Amino acid sequence: MANRKWPIITLLTDFGLKDPYVASMKGVILSINPQCTLVDITHQVSPHDIREGAFILAQTYPTFPKGTIHLSVVDPGVGSARKPILIVTKNYFFAGPDNGLFTIALKAETVKQAVVLTNQKFFPSKISSTFHGRDIFAPVAAYVSLGVKPESFGPSIKSWHEIPFPDPAMKQGKLIGEIVHVDAFGNLVSNIDYKNLLKVSKGRPFLIKIGKRTMRGLKKGYWEGKKNEPMALFGSGGYLEISIREGNAQKILKVKRGDSIQVEVRERRE
Amino acid sequence: MANRKWPIITLLTDFGLKDPYVASMKGVILSINPQCTLVDITHQVSPHDIREGAFILAQTYPTFPKGTIHLSVVDPGVGSARKPILIVTKNYFFAGPDNGLFTIALKAETVKQAVVLTNQKFFPSKISSTFHGRDIFAPVAAYVSLGVKPESFGPSIKSWHEIPFPDPAMKQGKLIGEIVHVDAFGNLVSNIDYKNLLKVSKGRPFLIKIGKRTMRGLKKGYWEGKKNEPMALFGSGGYLEISIREGNAQKILKVKRGDSIQVEVRERRE
Amino acid sequence: MANRKWPIITLLTDFGLKDPYVASMKGVILSINPQCTLVDITHQVSPHDIREGAFILAQTYPTFPKGTIHLSVVDPGVGSARKPILIVTKNYFFAGPDNGLFTIALKAETVKQAVVLTNQKFFPSKISSTFHGRDIFAPVAAYVSLGVKPESFGPSIKSWHEIPFPDPAMKQGKLIGEIVHVDAFGNLVSNIDYKNLLKVSKGRPFLIKIGKRTMRGLKKGYWEGKKNEPMALFGSGGYLEISIREGNAQKILKVKRGDSIQVEVRERRE
Repeated sequence: MANRKWPIITLLTDFGLKDPYVASMKGVILSINPQCTLVDITHQVSPHDIREGAFILAQTYPTFPKGTIHLSVVDPGVGSARKPILIVTKNYFFAGPDNGLFTIALKAETVKQAVVLTNQKFFPSKISSTFHGRDIFAPVAAYVSLGVKPESFGPSIKSWHEIPFPDPAMKQGKLIGEIVHVDAFGNLVSNIDYKNLLKVSKGRPFLIKIGKRTMRGLKKGYWEGKKNEPMALFGSGGYLEISIREGNAQKILKVKRGDSIQVEVRERRE
Repeated sequence: MANRKWPIITLLTDFGLKDPYVASMKGVILSINPQCTLVDITHQVSPHDIREGAFILAQTYPTFPKGTIHLSVVDPGVGSARKPILIVTKNYFFAGPDNGLFTIALKAETVKQAVVLTNQKFFPSKISSTFHGRDIFAPVAAYVSLGVKPESFGPSIKSWHEIPFPDPAMKQGKLIGEIVHVDAFGNLVSNIDYKNLLKVSKGRPFLIKIGKRTMRGLKKGYWEGKKNEPMALFGSGGYLEISIREGNAQKILKVKRGDSIQVEVRERRE
Repeated sequence: MANRKWPIITLLTDFGLKDPYVASMKGVILSINPQCTLVDITHQVSPHDIREGAFILAQTYPTFPKGTIHLSVVDPGVGSARKPILIVTKNYFFAGPDNGLFTIALKAETVKQAVVLTNQKFFPSKISSTFHGRDIFAPVAAYVSLGVKPESFGPSIKSWHEIPFPDPAMKQGKLIGEIVHVDAFGNLVSNIDYKNLLKVSKGRPFLIKIGKRTMRGLKKGYWEGKKNEPMALFGSGGYLEISIREGNAQKILKVKRGDSIQVEVRERRE
């Protein structure tokens, strides 16, 4: 199911771009399959931040063609008892540590097969206990791109680690969500999607509260915003987002990831 | 005119490398044409800084082979009335927002065709109002790489937005230019080229003034500079540049983009 | 010996990712050979830091397939008397300035040929005195990928510049090494390898001292570490490394590159 003619492997890590780590993984992959197209998703996940990695992966993986191999390594438990795994869905392959990194991505995928990566035949004779990205995940991704069957890498597993990503919840008539990502522009991305919003608003006017600010209703795009004034809109990932036109909402609102955002129906007297 | 056998698409944005945005564009392109070679020009244009994007694009695009598709997105007005466009020159394709981003690049190119990107057939059914890079420009670049004709994307336009990039000017016998770029080494790149300089110097010795410093004449390369002492030379982009050998001119001179730089003929008595 | 079917060129520089420099090199290469696979090793070597570049190159180049062309430019002496060179080993090509950048990499390689790059035929008519990366090294790498013979680029040389990378030394019964790299996680990588360690320990228990801290013995992986407590282990590059589990050893120990690290056999009374 991997695209043998134009194999694509994406890479997502918390390794940064300065150190030898990312290039080593690429060298290993190209040594096994020099035809691979390698695409960086990001290497700037905050160190050890599995949740952030899971969010960025979930926002990007489905834009890639069917058969793409997603190699993701945010791996604070490298070398410990946490398993190295390969998960095969209807559309993609996911190789990486079994620590919840694929949690959000897999919500939208149909898993067909999952294996733990144990077959030494595909790894170098000495595996570093601190760098499975190079010694286990990179070779596995490369061999998958050559058409090696998932069952060749090790025994099947029936379950894998998931980490909780709470959905927004109704509480005393209000919808309570949280900021799950702050992007480089300072846009505050929440976990509230359009369906969540409809459930509370039912088409009625509503207020959005975050930090000390209250906003009424939604803008259609950044261009509708006023200078230095936060606005709410649905961002490109499909989630409610607080932004400032040509400004940085994060700096002005001093909100951080994990902070609460609320939606409530607007009282008439207001 | 696109190179169908070895299609190249370059990407220039202000998205940074951490967020899902750049990888999403690449995923969309490769889903349409998995044979594309993708080359990052930069994704570190300062947020919303069209002028900086225009400068970096102008310095890099002509090094690429004929037929290269340059996809550039610095787009503070995304989703507003500003048009999404494709400009076809004798040598290249430029896809991006019609906000002046291509101004400097087009000065050196012969435009053959320009269209506004309106044909929904090439876009996803729902276009995000905040991310035309993924939903409009990436698909257009990918379809161009497959040989789709520019006129397929929408109606022709006869003009497009340009932003002013003032040339250096003579004033009271002095040539007044400005710093248009500060690079990562701290080199201060001006808008004064060799022809500009000749106009004022006419082969005579000259002084270069910037901030509180005055330099006499030009160095041939960084190696001629003295430690901690600013020098003037012509940089690799063909512009007069103030540098410090193995040092950071920006930090020492405390000059910033937009600041003035002057060239004047040296008085004999000096 | 270059892989003509799947040519790979790696790039390592201190240019950063924002400026036009890296993309210009890529444009030049692809204009000569659009089939090249370009892989960034890093562009975030500290400005002018040849030693750091040499270390990162040495850690990454051998992961790439035979025939890979390694194009490396950390070049404070650009345009001066320092030579532009191409070194051909049994496995790889190295193109860059003759300033010691290849010192560590070449220790493990068998050099077959070395030439100085003088043949104007392969360069643009005007060579910038500040950017040989674009005007000399990129074209040479691209022509090598097309199968041009090394001797075509210029006369042979028998020696090249090396910079000292001191090995750890025994002093009063202690092994004295130094920190040669601090990675993005804050891990402190030394120049002490397993053989060095064996020479002093001879299988006996030992202490590792760095800054004001003393550690007993080695951990097998990060997962064995305790919170906020520095530990010693062998990192993925094969060197003794000081780390903190899910923490930043550099920030907590306040150690920097060049600082000393010592190994000594543990006295019984301890």
